[in-house]
Amino acid sequence: MSVAGKHAALICDWCLEVTPGQQVLVETTTLAQEVAVALHNALLDRGAWPLLRLSPAGLQADFYGHAKDRHLDGFAPLELTEHESADASVRIIAPANTNELAGIDPALPARFATARTALREASMARRWSLSIWPTAALAQQARMGERDYAEFVRRALFLDQPEPIEAWRSLSERQASIVDRLSTVREVRIESDRTDLRLDVAGRTWINSDGRRNMPSGEVFTSPLERSATGQIYFDVPSTNRGADVSGVELTFRDGEVVSARADLGDERLQAALATDDGARRLGELGIGTNSGIDRATGSTLLDEKIAGTIHLALGRSYPEAGGENGSAIHWDLICDLRGGGRVSVDGEVLIEDGALVG
Amino acid sequence: MSVAGKHAALICDWCLEVTPGQQVLVETTTLAQEVAVALHNALLDRGAWPLLRLSPAGLQADFYGHAKDRHLDGFAPLELTEHESADASVRIIAPANTNELAGIDPALPARFATARTALREASMARRWSLSIWPTAALAQQARMGERDYAEFVRRALFLDQPEPIEAWRSLSERQASIVDRLSTVREVRIESDRTDLRLDVAGRTWINSDGRRNMPSGEVFTSPLERSATGQIYFDVPSTNRGADVSGVELTFRDGEVVSARADLGDERLQAALATDDGARRLGELGIGTNSGIDRATGSTLLDEKIAGTIHLALGRSYPEAGGENGSAIHWDLICDLRGGGRVSVDGEVLIEDGALVG
Repeated sequence: MSVAGKHAALICDWCLEVTPGQQVLVETTTLAQEVAVALHNALLDRGAWPLLRLSPAGLQADFYGHAKDRHLDGFAPLELTEHESADASVRIIAPANTNELAGIDPALPARFATARTALREASMARRWSLSIWPTAALAQQARMGERDYAEFVRRALFLDQPEPIEAWRSLSERQASIVDRLSTVREVRIESDRTDLRLDVAGRTWINSDGRRNMPSGEVFTSPLERSATGQIYFDVPSTNRGADVSGVELTFRDGEVVSARADLGDERLQAALATDDGARRLGELGIGTNSGIDRATGSTLLDEKIAGTIHLALGRSYPEAGGENGSAIHWDLICDLRGGGRVSVDGEVLIEDGALVG
Repeated sequence: MSVAGKHAALICDWCLEVTPGQQVLVETTTLAQEVAVALHNALLDRGAWPLLRLSPAGLQADFYGHAKDRHLDGFAPLELTEHESADASVRIIAPANTNELAGIDPALPARFATARTALREASMARRWSLSIWPTAALAQQARMGERDYAEFVRRALFLDQPEPIEAWRSLSERQASIVDRLSTVREVRIESDRTDLRLDVAGRTWINSDGRRNMPSGEVFTSPLERSATGQIYFDVPSTNRGADVSGVELTFRDGEVVSARADLGDERLQAALATDDGARRLGELGIGTNSGIDRATGSTLLDEKIAGTIHLALGRSYPEAGGENGSAIHWDLICDLRGGGRVSVDGEVLIEDGALVG
C-alpha cells in the first residue's frame, strides 16, 4: 500500500474510528491531493461519506486581501451547519508557504479566529483529527530536502512500522503509565537555561494523547491551574504563529498571567497574540513529548511538541477534558527542548533529566 | 485583469448576479484552481461567501471503484443541505481526462444520477451556472494545442471582447428577436443528410439562453411536445456521455418515443442511457445554437451545442420553464451541424438554411 493509503487507513481506523454511514469532512490544501484521494477511497471502503474540502494552497493570503468586515467577523451559515452535522472531521496541514501570512496585519487572523469560535467548538464537540502531509514548504522550513522530509514525516506517524496501528497502541500503553504516575502530582517545576517555572496541576486530569486527535501525537498533557504559573521560561524551539516565524520567546508569569514577554524574532506577532483576549495571557496546557520517531524540531508545532525530551506550554485555550477553563480564541504552543540540559520535577522528584524520563 | 479574473467577474455579475451576504458554491476540479481562486476573491469583493468544492481531477473513477450500494443509491445528507441552503452555485468543467469513466459499467453512473435527483432539483431551484475552464484533456479532445484551446474558450465566453458583459447583453437582444419569431410556431421540421424529423412545439415557451446559466451559452431552446417527434435524425457531431465517447448517433422516433437507436461508436453507452428510465427515450429539448465565437465542435457539449449553425435535441429531462414535463434522470444533448447543408423550417417557412438564419 502507498504511504498515502497507509496514512488514510490510520486516520480512518485509529484516529476517527470511522463507521458506516458517517459523514466525514476532509479539510486540506490541493497539495495534499494524494492523501485526500486515498482518504476519499478509504472512507467509501468503510461505508462512510467523504466530504472533501480542498483549498487552493495560498488561499489564506487571498482571503485577508479581499475579506470585508462581514468575512472577518463572522462565517457562512453553511460552515456551521457542516461542522454541526458532520460526524467527524480531519484537517491535514499541507501549506505551499509556511510564511504565507507574514505580510498580513496580525490583528486580522486574531479577529478571524475569535469570530470562528462557534465553528471550532462545533467541530471539537465531534470526533476530529489533525494531521500533516509533507510539502516542499514544510521541507524547506525543516531545512531538509523533500525526500528526506517525507521520510521524516513517515517515521513521525509510525507509517514506517509494519503495523502502524499496533505501534500507536503500544505508545498509548507506555503513556498510560506516565499519566498514572502524574495523576497524584501537585506541583510541576521546569528548570533549564533562563528557565525556572512552577505550575500547580493539583486535581487536573492528565490526557494520554496517543494519536487519536493529533496525528502524529505522542504526548501527555494537562491544563495547569490558571492562577498558578510563577517564574520565567525561555522557549528555545522556534515556532510559527499564523504563518509568521517567531523564535526565542521568553515569558515571565505572576499568579498565572504573563507579566512580561519578548521574542527574539516576531515580537510584534507575540504581543498581538497576547492581546487577543484575557485568556491569551494565561496558560491552557502543559505537555510532555514522548514520540521518539520525531528526532528534531522542524518548525511544525504539531510535530515539534511531540519530540521525546521536550515539554511545551500553550498560551490560551485549554482542553475542558483536562479540567481547564481557559476559553481564549488562541492556542499557541511554545516548546522547550530539554535534551541539551534541563529538568522537570514533580513534587520535588525528578521526572525528566536532560530530556530522558527518569524511573 | 487576468483571464481567470475576467471569467470570475462574468460569473459573478452576469451569470449569478451575486449580492452581498449570499452563499455561493463553487464546484470544480483542482485543475481549475486559478479560476476558483479568482472566484473566491471576486465573491469576497462582492460581500458574498465563497464555498469552494474542489475535487481532485480523476476522482469520479475512484468513486465508482470504491462506492458501495449506499453511495450509488443515495447521497450524504449534508450535500442536500448544502444545495438547499446555498443561494447560488457554479460548476466549472475542468477534467484531467475526458474518457475517465470509459472503463466503468455505464449502469453505475446512470444509477448514481437517478439517486441524486433531489440534489439536482434543489440546486436548479436556485440560481446556478455551468462553465468551463481549459485543461490539457479538453484541448486534446478538441485536437488542439493547449494555448490555442485556451484562446478558443476565451472567444467562446466573449472574454476576448473589451466588455464581456456588454457582448452577452447584445447576444441576448439578438436572441430575443428569434424567440419572438418562434413563439407562435407550431411545427419544426429538421432536414439534412439521413435526417427528416418533425416536432410539435405549439404552446411551448422558447427560452433565450444568454449565458446566465450555461457560460458560454448562445442558444434558444424549448421542449417539444412529448408525443410529437416523428421521423429520423442523424447527429453528426460526436458527443461524450459520462466520460465515454459516443458518435454517429441515429435515432428513429414514433409518437415522441425512440423506437430504434444506434451509434457508430459507443452504442452500448447509448443503449444504457436510453434504458435509464421512461423519460430517457423521449425528447426534453430542441435547441438552436447562435454563438459565433464558437467556430468548431471540440467534443464538449456545453460549447458544441452553442455553435451558430447547429441544432440539438436532448434525450431526457426537459426544462419546466419551457413547458416540458420530462422528469428523466438523464439529459443528453445530441448535435446536428447544418453548416454543411441542412434546413430547419417552421410551419413550412425556412428558418435556417445551410446553418445560416434566414430573414
